[in-house]
Amino acid sequence: MALAKSKYMQVVNPVYDGDIPPSEMTLSFINYDSASAETKDVSTIDEVIKLKNDSKILWINVSGLKDIDSIKRLGELLEIHPLTIEDILQTEQQAKMEVFDNYRFFLVKTIVQKKNIFSRINAGKKKFSLPFLTKKNPISQEEKTDELIITQVGMIIMKNVLLTFQELSGGAFESIKRKILENTGEIRKMETDYLAYLIIDKIVDEYFNSINHLEEHIENLEERATKTNDDTYIEEIQETKKYLLFIKKAILPLKNNLLIISRQESFFQTGDIKPFLQDLIENLDHAVTQVEHYREWLSSVMEVNLSVLSYQLNKIMKVLAMISAIFIPLSFIAGIYGMNFDVMPELRYKMAYFIVLGVMLIVAVTMIVFFKVRKWF
Amino acid sequence: MALAKSKYMQVVNPVYDGDIPPSEMTLSFINYDSASAETKDVSTIDEVIKLKNDSKILWINVSGLKDIDSIKRLGELLEIHPLTIEDILQTEQQAKMEVFDNYRFFLVKTIVQKKNIFSRINAGKKKFSLPFLTKKNPISQEEKTDELIITQVGMIIMKNVLLTFQELSGGAFESIKRKILENTGEIRKMETDYLAYLIIDKIVDEYFNSINHLEEHIENLEERATKTNDDTYIEEIQETKKYLLFIKKAILPLKNNLLIISRQESFFQTGDIKPFLQDLIENLDHAVTQVEHYREWLSSVMEVNLSVLSYQLNKIMKVLAMISAIFIPLSFIAGIYGMNFDVMPELRYKMAYFIVLGVMLIVAVTMIVFFKVRKWF
Amino acid sequence: MALAKSKYMQVVNPVYDGDIPPSEMTLSFINYDSASAETKDVSTIDEVIKLKNDSKILWINVSGLKDIDSIKRLGELLEIHPLTIEDILQTEQQAKMEVFDNYRFFLVKTIVQKKNIFSRINAGKKKFSLPFLTKKNPISQEEKTDELIITQVGMIIMKNVLLTFQELSGGAFESIKRKILENTGEIRKMETDYLAYLIIDKIVDEYFNSINHLEEHIENLEERATKTNDDTYIEEIQETKKYLLFIKKAILPLKNNLLIISRQESFFQTGDIKPFLQDLIENLDHAVTQVEHYREWLSSVMEVNLSVLSYQLNKIMKVLAMISAIFIPLSFIAGIYGMNFDVMPELRYKMAYFIVLGVMLIVAVTMIVFFKVRKWF
Amino acid sequence: MALAKSKYMQVVNPVYDGDIPPSEMTLSFINYDSASAETKDVSTIDEVIKLKNDSKILWINVSGLKDIDSIKRLGELLEIHPLTIEDILQTEQQAKMEVFDNYRFFLVKTIVQKKNIFSRINAGKKKFSLPFLTKKNPISQEEKTDELIITQVGMIIMKNVLLTFQELSGGAFESIKRKILENTGEIRKMETDYLAYLIIDKIVDEYFNSINHLEEHIENLEERATKTNDDTYIEEIQETKKYLLFIKKAILPLKNNLLIISRQESFFQTGDIKPFLQDLIENLDHAVTQVEHYREWLSSVMEVNLSVLSYQLNKIMKVLAMISAIFIPLSFIAGIYGMNFDVMPELRYKMAYFIVLGVMLIVAVTMIVFFKVRKWF
Amino acid sequence: MALAKSKYMQVVNPVYDGDIPPSEMTLSFINYDSASAETKDVSTIDEVIKLKNDSKILWINVSGLKDIDSIKRLGELLEIHPLTIEDILQTEQQAKMEVFDNYRFFLVKTIVQKKNIFSRINAGKKKFSLPFLTKKNPISQEEKTDELIITQVGMIIMKNVLLTFQELSGGAFESIKRKILENTGEIRKMETDYLAYLIIDKIVDEYFNSINHLEEHIENLEERATKTNDDTYIEEIQETKKYLLFIKKAILPLKNNLLIISRQESFFQTGDIKPFLQDLIENLDHAVTQVEHYREWLSSVMEVNLSVLSYQLNKIMKVLAMISAIFIPLSFIAGIYGMNFDVMPELRYKMAYFIVLGVMLIVAVTMIVFFKVRKWF
Repeated sequence: MALAKSKYMQVVNPVYDGDIPPSEMTLSFINYDSASAETKDVSTIDEVIKLKNDSKILWINVSGLKDIDSIKRLGELLEIHPLTIEDILQTEQQAKMEVFDNYRFFLVKTIVQKKNIFSRINAGKKKFSLPFLTKKNPISQEEKTDELIITQVGMIIMKNVLLTFQELSGGAFESIKRKILENTGEIRKMETDYLAYLIIDKIVDEYFNSINHLEEHIENLEERATKTNDDTYIEEIQETKKYLLFIKKAILPLKNNLLIISRQESFFQTGDIKPFLQDLIENLDHAVTQVEHYREWLSSVMEVNLSVLSYQLNKIMKVLAMISAIFIPLSFIAGIYGMNFDVMPELRYKMAYFIVLGVMLIVAVTMIVFFKVRKWF
Repeated sequence: MALAKSKYMQVVNPVYDGDIPPSEMTLSFINYDSASAETKDVSTIDEVIKLKNDSKILWINVSGLKDIDSIKRLGELLEIHPLTIEDILQTEQQAKMEVFDNYRFFLVKTIVQKKNIFSRINAGKKKFSLPFLTKKNPISQEEKTDELIITQVGMIIMKNVLLTFQELSGGAFESIKRKILENTGEIRKMETDYLAYLIIDKIVDEYFNSINHLEEHIENLEERATKTNDDTYIEEIQETKKYLLFIKKAILPLKNNLLIISRQESFFQTGDIKPFLQDLIENLDHAVTQVEHYREWLSSVMEVNLSVLSYQLNKIMKVLAMISAIFIPLSFIAGIYGMNFDVMPELRYKMAYFIVLGVMLIVAVTMIVFFKVRKWF
Repeated sequence: MALAKSKYMQVVNPVYDGDIPPSEMTLSFINYDSASAETKDVSTIDEVIKLKNDSKILWINVSGLKDIDSIKRLGELLEIHPLTIEDILQTEQQAKMEVFDNYRFFLVKTIVQKKNIFSRINAGKKKFSLPFLTKKNPISQEEKTDELIITQVGMIIMKNVLLTFQELSGGAFESIKRKILENTGEIRKMETDYLAYLIIDKIVDEYFNSINHLEEHIENLEERATKTNDDTYIEEIQETKKYLLFIKKAILPLKNNLLIISRQESFFQTGDIKPFLQDLIENLDHAVTQVEHYREWLSSVMEVNLSVLSYQLNKIMKVLAMISAIFIPLSFIAGIYGMNFDVMPELRYKMAYFIVLGVMLIVAVTMIVFFKVRKWF
Repeated sequence: MALAKSKYMQVVNPVYDGDIPPSEMTLSFINYDSASAETKDVSTIDEVIKLKNDSKILWINVSGLKDIDSIKRLGELLEIHPLTIEDILQTEQQAKMEVFDNYRFFLVKTIVQKKNIFSRINAGKKKFSLPFLTKKNPISQEEKTDELIITQVGMIIMKNVLLTFQELSGGAFESIKRKILENTGEIRKMETDYLAYLIIDKIVDEYFNSINHLEEHIENLEERATKTNDDTYIEEIQETKKYLLFIKKAILPLKNNLLIISRQESFFQTGDIKPFLQDLIENLDHAVTQVEHYREWLSSVMEVNLSVLSYQLNKIMKVLAMISAIFIPLSFIAGIYGMNFDVMPELRYKMAYFIVLGVMLIVAVTMIVFFKVRKWF
Repeated sequence: MALAKSKYMQVVNPVYDGDIPPSEMTLSFINYDSASAETKDVSTIDEVIKLKNDSKILWINVSGLKDIDSIKRLGELLEIHPLTIEDILQTEQQAKMEVFDNYRFFLVKTIVQKKNIFSRINAGKKKFSLPFLTKKNPISQEEKTDELIITQVGMIIMKNVLLTFQELSGGAFESIKRKILENTGEIRKMETDYLAYLIIDKIVDEYFNSINHLEEHIENLEERATKTNDDTYIEEIQETKKYLLFIKKAILPLKNNLLIISRQESFFQTGDIKPFLQDLIENLDHAVTQVEHYREWLSSVMEVNLSVLSYQLNKIMKVLAMISAIFIPLSFIAGIYGMNFDVMPELRYKMAYFIVLGVMLIVAVTMIVFFKVRKWF
């Protein structure tokens, strides 16, 4: 498919842990076969590499990408193309998927709520702070972490080795690790492709969390649409729209890559994984539909807001116009008796001034009554 | 399905009776097999528990959740997890479904019109009073009860026992009870899962009643869209929209849970129930479509209202602007003859003042005629 | 289906004749088998009842529901439930369908153009006068009858007897009677259910006539959208919308009831009727889609009208604002020379007054030229 | 189908020639079998009729319907019902289709661009002049003929005779004639129904030409939407919309009639024609969708235009309001020193007048600077 | 299909090279069979023609169409119809497809970003410069080439010869040439039709590149919708819309022609090509949907922009109206004491002037406070 090839031939592979992210790079592995599983945090690459063998599956996870030398050395030891390593280290890229002779490389974007990872490591990250949430209540510690962060995960799938490179660490993968250690489900009997599938599934789950999180924002925005005249309201809507667009742009390449994979007989080693992929693709499809629906919803919310604001503004204008409409005729009357004609009989009458004041009062009251009767205010 | 798991893994199980709700907690049971059925209101838990046996089905219904100790004791006697009991007692939760070893737990939201339950028990309940209904006619006793109340129902499905916990009592279940006692249909020959299905079906019926009830409101709102300039009109629309959103949020998890169930071979004991579930899911799907259609309808109604209001406001502005446009030129003429130049020949003419007044009149009349000819008012 | 049961379990059965409706109740019958057919207007119930036998089909038609005693007696003789008779007599009901042991009862709403029935009997009927039609041309006799009237028809289907109760009489059924008498088509060989089908089909035809009639109105309204500034225009749109809503509400229960029937093996005696019902349901579906399309169309027409009106209003405002903008600076100049400072050299110059008048003229002309050059008017 | 019967039971049969239309009625025929073909223009009916025989197909074409006596005589000779002849002669009718014992009658509307027929015959024809086309360039001779004309064609299909009655003559049928004479394709081997199909196909082609022609207009209108403030612009849009509606109303009955035909086994003699009809119906369906899309497109174009116009108008209003807002405070200052209090110390100061003038200047400049800084103009 | 025939019977055949386009015409060929391949740039037509033989495939590419004589000679040598040569040379045509006895002719429009071809040859080309891209950053060399250029490619498919005529040269075809020379894939074993398919596929890829390129523009436009008040913003939107329309008009005939081909058994020699065509058609369908979605998106973006702009304008108007509303009553007070009545007691009081000034101040402050309290500014 031309579209997929030209735009979406990207790697899908996000990694992060839900726990406290270290400010330093950490290196850990799980080594398992159907009989046993072993995990350890290690300090040097070489400790891990020697575990690699044909009978066991080795999952190496790198959290935080500070120690560039180690990562490069890991790449060399496992015969990974230097360009792949570069892709992993450079975090401003789009999601992609690349096929090499001895491995498959996925690069994927993840979206996490800050409160799920407690603190960010890299200062340069894009933040989607959603101010409208913190506006309603006094800012508590918990809300301060209500931010959405986009990180990147690289994943290299080899025959018996799975490498994951997380820009931010966090506990999302911990649940998968636990599954391996506790031997729940089928995981220990499956190949690296099933492990990769589980990681992608976790990331997709996070997408849905973010979408649901935003849904609440949108409901909140809709509720305020007819009440607020806050100048930042429109900005909030635009911000949310932008964020939805970002999610869509993270999902679409992932979906397209999974679609390509699901059609290729040979990509994942075990055919058993196909129905899982189908499910995943359907979910991503559903997510895209939802995101587009939310964008349209926001547009209509914005329109309602602008219509209501304009109407309220016009009501103010009406009152101001009434003030003018009452005083301009009165000024005209005053203007008449401000003229300097030699012969202006009224000017000579003793009570004239008071009569004119009275007339002005009557005119003003008449106009007000007229406006009131017509229900103009 | 990722979405369902992360958000909608909730229990579906609402219970209420259409009769006068007691301010106290009441406890009742029906004990039946295909041959006979017996029902009684009881005062203590222990009276009921001893009826439990393998050959008969026992349905225990708890209305009003005041006597927490009794409920907890019931939980202990039937080996129900303390967290389930907590879920039942806490009424501010979302709908959910949980599977335990010896039972399945549903928690569901119900929407009832107040007139169907006569009086509310718990003061803390959310009310959706729909003021626009009561506005049209003088408030009668009947209309005062035209309110929508959201309550919660817990349902525990065991092998031969069904427990229902109603936040508010009412007669909705009475019809099912009667069916059992009078042995209408297949109910006496079926397992507890069929009984549970009938209860959920009743609750879904109530959803449709609420939706149809709101449809009339929306029609009423549409009719008023071009006439009203009531400030509360927009508020009513927003209120109705919010209510529709609530119904959607009550239906969606129910639908997703039923979908999960309908795919699991083992959940309901008898396969006979599947076609009923399919019907129920289709109906819920249809309801969601309708609710979304109504929300869009309301948006368009609001837009029409705002357009009409703005147009009417502008017509007022036009009249005010006309008043200004007529008197400003007149004031200018008066201003000219209010100037203090030494040489202003006109000022000396005897009739000048009256001529100027005449000119002013002519100017004013000309302008009015001009406006009239152009059909500006 | 929960929706159908709670809302739409209604009878579908309208009856009217296209001829001059009598102000009195008339009673007529057709008695036929495949060999012969006989029709007569009768004055008493008993004359008809004795014709009932097992080998022939008897269709009794009651037009105008004035003689309540006769109708009740007819009910008693044919063992019809008193509630059914009550439903037939009370004309403010919704369409419904009810199944009894010995008969099926349909109640349906019909929509007829007044010109098709010449005069109305009951004064209390709802009228949908469509003023925009009569506005264009001088009101002729023919147009005066351009009104849409909603009436009700009751239909009781028994084994060999069909009862129809028309609120208004008219010739719509005459064509069916003729078919029986002239033995056209299959009608004489069919059971009462086929006869009932033919009657419903006639009523559905009338729905389409009404929809097409309204389509022309909408086209007319669209054409006027950018030209009219008639205050009643919006009202006409709302009226038409309301009417479309009514048609939809008449069609939906009919469709749902036919759907239920078409699924029940046993409802209509002869299976041959199913394909006809399928056709009818498809047509009704199509009609609902059309009605909703027309409602949206009207909304967009209204929006165009309001936009055009607002724009025209704003053009008027612009002219008024120009008048003010020209005279306010002039007034200011006059105001300067109306000040009473002791030292104002200009006031002493002989030509000053005329120079100032000239300056005023120049200012005014400059502004007008400026506005003209900028194409502001 | 109820809809089709009540509204669309109309004849589909348009005829015209692309050449120069004669102001007089012309009569021509083609007489052919698979072996030979002969064509001639004749002056009397009787010359043609004697050619009718069972082994050859005779196509008689009547262009221009002036000689009513001849047409009536033709009808008599071929045993055509007088009502059919009346339908052919009366050109203000809707399209229809009627089935008689010895022939089938089609009446259809055609839409042709005037430039394709060079001059019109009947002065009373409806014209859709599209002024916006001629506005852009100086009016050339070619553009003057850029008009859409609606004419009517009658077609009578008999066993071996096809009669076509064209309101306007033109060369559209010439290509079919040529096909017969040159024996291209299968035409000589087919019956009259295939010939009729070819004629209808030609007319449908013309519909598409008209639609494509209008598409360009709409693109042109869209381009001007944000630039024009021409009062006739909205009118042009409405005109185009009306025209699209007309095309739709010409297509719909044709489509419905063809649909009815394609379902009837016996209508066209040779079954071979069915796939062609299917194609034609699909094309007409596609055309209707396109026409409706264009109507919506025009609505949105109009809305954009009105929004842009309103915005531009408001910008003018802003400038006018600024002029007022600057001079009204200045007038107030002048007004203060125009007061006649005995004690007003400022009035006595020699420089006061000039100081006040200076203050006024400062106020005015300050306001302008303020507006400029805020980017209000 | 009537639509296709009347409008879309056009040739699909674009050619360009991604490299530096020569200002002169260049002539090159590839001569290959499954065993060998040879390529060369030649200077005269005759050099090429003698390579033509039955066992090898000869692809002749002409870049730049300056040397008209050579092209005409090429046409003569290969027995190409003069009208086809004319179509190739005239670059203002619409896409088309024509079938001749000895060859098939495609004419297709291509859309390329200027940066992909470095410089344009023909000065008369249409340019779609997209100014909004260059506005954000300072104009760099790279951005200056961010322009979309529409060129035309002609393609003549013969038995063993493929001729391509590129209006602009460029490297797009280079990749295909390389495939032939390096014998990658199946290309060497296939006929000329497969080669033609590859060329069209390349052009379709470029369409998607252009669409994706525009998508970014639209996102950028959406982001600016609530912030900009740039007068050129609306223009940019209209420009982008126009461009999308152009892409659609380039895609639609291509799609229709491919559809026609894919139905004709005989068009492409090898049946193997059909699934590729199906894919291509699906992609083009998808592209059209996307383009229409983008057009609607732009419409809604424009509406948001106009709504926001109008609202901001109204806020300015409000401030201006407030200034007037404050000073007009003050002027009225001044006007009163500017009247010239003989008896105006206040005028005689010594402090009156200062009291009046004070009253004015109080009135002004009261109004400001009132406006402030009501949150009018």
